[in-house]
Amino acid sequence: MRTLRRRACLIFSSSMVKAISVAFTTVAFILGVVTSVLSGYLGMKIATYANARTTLEARKGVGKAFFLLPFVLDGLLVLYIAINLFKIYYKTEREGLFEAITGYGLGGSSVALFGRVGGGIYTKAADVGADLVGKVERNIPEDDPRNPAVIADNVGDNVGDIAGMGSDLFGSFAESSCAALVVASISSFGTSHDFTAMCFPLLISSMGIVVCLITTLFATDFYEIKEVNQIEPALKRQLIISTALMTLGILLVCFLALPSSFTIYNLGSTPKVVKWWHLFFCVAVGLWAGLIIGYTTEYFTSNAYSPVQDVADSCRTGAATNIIFGLALGYKSVIIPIFAIAVAIYVSFALAVFYGIAVAALGMLSTIATGLAIDAYGPISDNAGGIAEMAGMSHHIRERTDALDAAGNTTAAIGKGFAIGSAALVSLALFGAYVSRASLTSVDVLSAKVFIGLIVGAMLPYWFSAMTMKSVGKAALSMVEEVRRQFNTIPGLMEGINNPDYATCVKISTDASIKEMIPPGALVMVTPLVVGILFGVETLAGLLAGALVSGVQIAISASNTGGAWDNAKKYIEAGASEHARNLGPKGSDAHKAAVIGDTVGDPLKDTSGPSLNILIKLMAVESLVFAPFFAAHGRLLFKIG
Amino acid sequence: MRTLRRRACLIFSSSMVKAISVAFTTVAFILGVVTSVLSGYLGMKIATYANARTTLEARKGVGKAFFLLPFVLDGLLVLYIAINLFKIYYKTEREGLFEAITGYGLGGSSVALFGRVGGGIYTKAADVGADLVGKVERNIPEDDPRNPAVIADNVGDNVGDIAGMGSDLFGSFAESSCAALVVASISSFGTSHDFTAMCFPLLISSMGIVVCLITTLFATDFYEIKEVNQIEPALKRQLIISTALMTLGILLVCFLALPSSFTIYNLGSTPKVVKWWHLFFCVAVGLWAGLIIGYTTEYFTSNAYSPVQDVADSCRTGAATNIIFGLALGYKSVIIPIFAIAVAIYVSFALAVFYGIAVAALGMLSTIATGLAIDAYGPISDNAGGIAEMAGMSHHIRERTDALDAAGNTTAAIGKGFAIGSAALVSLALFGAYVSRASLTSVDVLSAKVFIGLIVGAMLPYWFSAMTMKSVGKAALSMVEEVRRQFNTIPGLMEGINNPDYATCVKISTDASIKEMIPPGALVMVTPLVVGILFGVETLAGLLAGALVSGVQIAISASNTGGAWDNAKKYIEAGASEHARNLGPKGSDAHKAAVIGDTVGDPLKDTSGPSLNILIKLMAVESLVFAPFFAAHGRLLFKIG
Repeated sequence: MRTLRRRACLIFSSSMVKAISVAFTTVAFILGVVTSVLSGYLGMKIATYANARTTLEARKGVGKAFFLLPFVLDGLLVLYIAINLFKIYYKTEREGLFEAITGYGLGGSSVALFGRVGGGIYTKAADVGADLVGKVERNIPEDDPRNPAVIADNVGDNVGDIAGMGSDLFGSFAESSCAALVVASISSFGTSHDFTAMCFPLLISSMGIVVCLITTLFATDFYEIKEVNQIEPALKRQLIISTALMTLGILLVCFLALPSSFTIYNLGSTPKVVKWWHLFFCVAVGLWAGLIIGYTTEYFTSNAYSPVQDVADSCRTGAATNIIFGLALGYKSVIIPIFAIAVAIYVSFALAVFYGIAVAALGMLSTIATGLAIDAYGPISDNAGGIAEMAGMSHHIRERTDALDAAGNTTAAIGKGFAIGSAALVSLALFGAYVSRASLTSVDVLSAKVFIGLIVGAMLPYWFSAMTMKSVGKAALSMVEEVRRQFNTIPGLMEGINNPDYATCVKISTDASIKEMIPPGALVMVTPLVVGILFGVETLAGLLAGALVSGVQIAISASNTGGAWDNAKKYIEAGASEHARNLGPKGSDAHKAAVIGDTVGDPLKDTSGPSLNILIKLMAVESLVFAPFFAAHGRLLFKIG
Repeated sequence: MRTLRRRACLIFSSSMVKAISVAFTTVAFILGVVTSVLSGYLGMKIATYANARTTLEARKGVGKAFFLLPFVLDGLLVLYIAINLFKIYYKTEREGLFEAITGYGLGGSSVALFGRVGGGIYTKAADVGADLVGKVERNIPEDDPRNPAVIADNVGDNVGDIAGMGSDLFGSFAESSCAALVVASISSFGTSHDFTAMCFPLLISSMGIVVCLITTLFATDFYEIKEVNQIEPALKRQLIISTALMTLGILLVCFLALPSSFTIYNLGSTPKVVKWWHLFFCVAVGLWAGLIIGYTTEYFTSNAYSPVQDVADSCRTGAATNIIFGLALGYKSVIIPIFAIAVAIYVSFALAVFYGIAVAALGMLSTIATGLAIDAYGPISDNAGGIAEMAGMSHHIRERTDALDAAGNTTAAIGKGFAIGSAALVSLALFGAYVSRASLTSVDVLSAKVFIGLIVGAMLPYWFSAMTMKSVGKAALSMVEEVRRQFNTIPGLMEGINNPDYATCVKISTDASIKEMIPPGALVMVTPLVVGILFGVETLAGLLAGALVSGVQIAISASNTGGAWDNAKKYIEAGASEHARNLGPKGSDAHKAAVIGDTVGDPLKDTSGPSLNILIKLMAVESLVFAPFFAAHGRLLFKIG
């Protein structure tokens, strides 16, 4: 009787602990959601302010059109406060504390899913729809105020690129911090309660913010940009300065915050003794891999180099060769980033196992503020051009904003390169944390359970991309019909006497994005649950690995192909060289072929490509959160057999 | 002194054994090469004969335009003879015997590389070049004899689709037989010297030939085809009849040839006892997975169903939406085949480990003759149309051959589906044989060595595709220039008074294909060697797995996207429904958009997509041949570190 009561008591207290742990995870989840939404909101506010400012400043010259989005700061702040509040309950039990904190990453990423997918559908439905009728059928310029979809297009640039990208990078940051904390909690960091070293991931990110602020000084105060062709070098210089400074910063943080040596316990294998300077190399290799990815992306998407010029040249024989060359360019652009990621993985894993990979991801993300500023540069310049066109400013200004926009396409691709590179490292770190929480000691490809996970996982990015691309296509078709309707029924619209009905177009984009993001969202959220419950943790591990290695490639190639097509078109339009003038001017056959490539590239580079970051990260973090549950209750299908 | 002499003696005899083994492998390699070349040659002979026959018979009605390529037979015969000859030396040592035989697979696949890649570049350079100038610029019909590239185009259909596909499927057959034999040689088949059971893979293939011959009776004698729209159902019926008959055939072979139960030793794990009917299910699951892949492919590429009709419909808004919808269709078409392959892998592995996977591949390939006939149907019908056009036959005949050609596009896609599905299974079987020869007991994704292999392996299909697509683009550009030159300089060419210089166009295609296939060929051949020697067998195992799971997806989506675009164009041209007539006729804006999609699809479906089969198979078989060498002498890079 007494044992029974004691057992009941134990069960009660164990389920109490479980309930409390669920409650903390939920709170962390909500915090992640709120912070991510807040970041996106702030980003959009700043960007809309910058839109107008950039337009006005472009009148005076191409200077100071740089700014910084410091909203990484609030992510860091919230995470730090949450850890300290949760600590009051968990006291010395680090493992429970940081597992509860994983909810923060899940929350951040869930919002990012909607930002990226919904935002991507929103912006490209409007963009493609506006271009197909306005530029192709009615032969009016891009961003002409007579085009009913023009406002939806401009809103979309902010929704997709600023809010979407912001929440994506914020999610990466939150998740890699959480992954590092979870791995750290099972290392001897945790057992010797060295809280400063435990918070090492947060210190790295804080240092990143300081470095980015210093870098901004170079951008805005030391160099004065006078010429349009100085923009791209200036942005690139910012990137290299922040990387160099950050390398010193990491050295400082590692030296000051870390114990000279400590032990990491990894997946039941022999414990690994890690020296402080080992971690320095882990973070640094991630940081520099990011720089390599950035520079490669620039090479493949800027019209200053031969790849984009070749694509532009292929427009001579029509749209088909343009598409073929563009796709080939995107495929080729994958090679160097993958090698950079592979080296980063090998070095950081060799030095500090999965903890090393988590901090390598943080290293790549540490220049996130610069990256975001560089990335936001694209849509802001794009919209500046739109505002100039709509406000009827002189042709001269439009040329300047177009140059800004071309540089912006490249920088947006660089930002996407960072986002996908860091997403790969983050997912791998989360994968490591998942494996350790699921108590797996190996993920053996020679086991059929793992292999079928691997091959199905590698298929998921295709399924997901099919959904998002089709969504953009469908939404664009309804946008096209609405725009055509307005041109046909509103008298005096083409003559500029009457205003179009902008609001209906905005509504079409909004409705489409909300409705169409449900199926791909469900695919991402439901798959890990179904696989974990029916097939168990091994198959799920294979699935995550497959989605990761396959998704990274499609994401990089899609965003670079799209960027290259866009800039090939701009290259022909600008006519800055003898070669470009031979292909142009606007309206020539080659230019028409280039416009088709640009339109195809839109959903690739702004919807399906960048959404894949979310796919691989979100599936990994979700699996991490539910790992103990799957390990205990999963494998239903194999239990029957 | 005596021990020294004895040791020298031992070393000498061991290197003698090694030299003899190398010699046997080389002989097998040469046999594989010769047989593959012979198969390709016979296939082209038969196909060119059938071209003319199909054209003439299309005059009488659409009957009997079916035929069979029985050249699987010579592959089987050569392999059987080689085994029996080698047996004279090896006597009872099965392991050495069948390892020497792997050279046969390597030889077959090396030729397939040149057939697929070179043939693919050849045919599409000619096709794209001919279309871009003829159809788009000069507005003359396809296959018009005034077009200088028309002969190169027709030759190319045979080179790429018949010789390429033939050597590809022959390679799959040779490799899966070899993989099955190698795995069998280390199972208790070998130790109890049950030669009939050892030759089980060959028996399965022989039964396949018998079944395909019987199936041909149904095609040519029992059903008389009267109407154009009966062609596709007839081809599909052939597929299902051969699958059903083959299921009975497998049951018979398994029951008669196999011992009631035997043991398979796999990778040092506990031996697996396999019953004869277990193997029946292994072969059958491969066979039926093939049927599912075939039917899915048909659904996504035939213009009788909504996917292709949607793509055609998207041409209303121009080429860009056509491309977007087409790419999305290809991505989506991957889902079901991957699930079918995953189920086949799981079932066959669970029942008989890697031996099960090898015989599952043979099951999928057992209807190879029907598959090849179905596949060859496409290029033969295409060329029949070309011949009709050039011979100035009546419009009526061209319409019939066009209908044959549309059915041919679908069947070609089905054939490619079989090829890629079986390639996936074959590669996995080879992977299993490789792992066992390299003495690996696990391939753990959690090890950084394996993971970097995985992610770089997943990148290789992109690198390879970038090369092949760019090659087609470049070769097509020089073809375009030559065709334009001839139209501009040969007087009376457009009027049909003077003949064009066909030979120069053939030469351009030939030269381009030979020159351009070197870099992708080198990538496939060199990568396993470099990775094996520098990084060792674990990284190479990761690389093979990564290339396999990523390559399968691209190959399926590329060939289905291309097939769908081609048939969307044909759908508009044929104008068989109200919807299609709204989009047409030939020359309408929608039709022009469809032509662009078709042209983009050409290199996807006939060059880069199907070449990926070879990439994954050839890397696996090459690794298998060199596995003991890598295991003994590889890992140079890690040894330094």
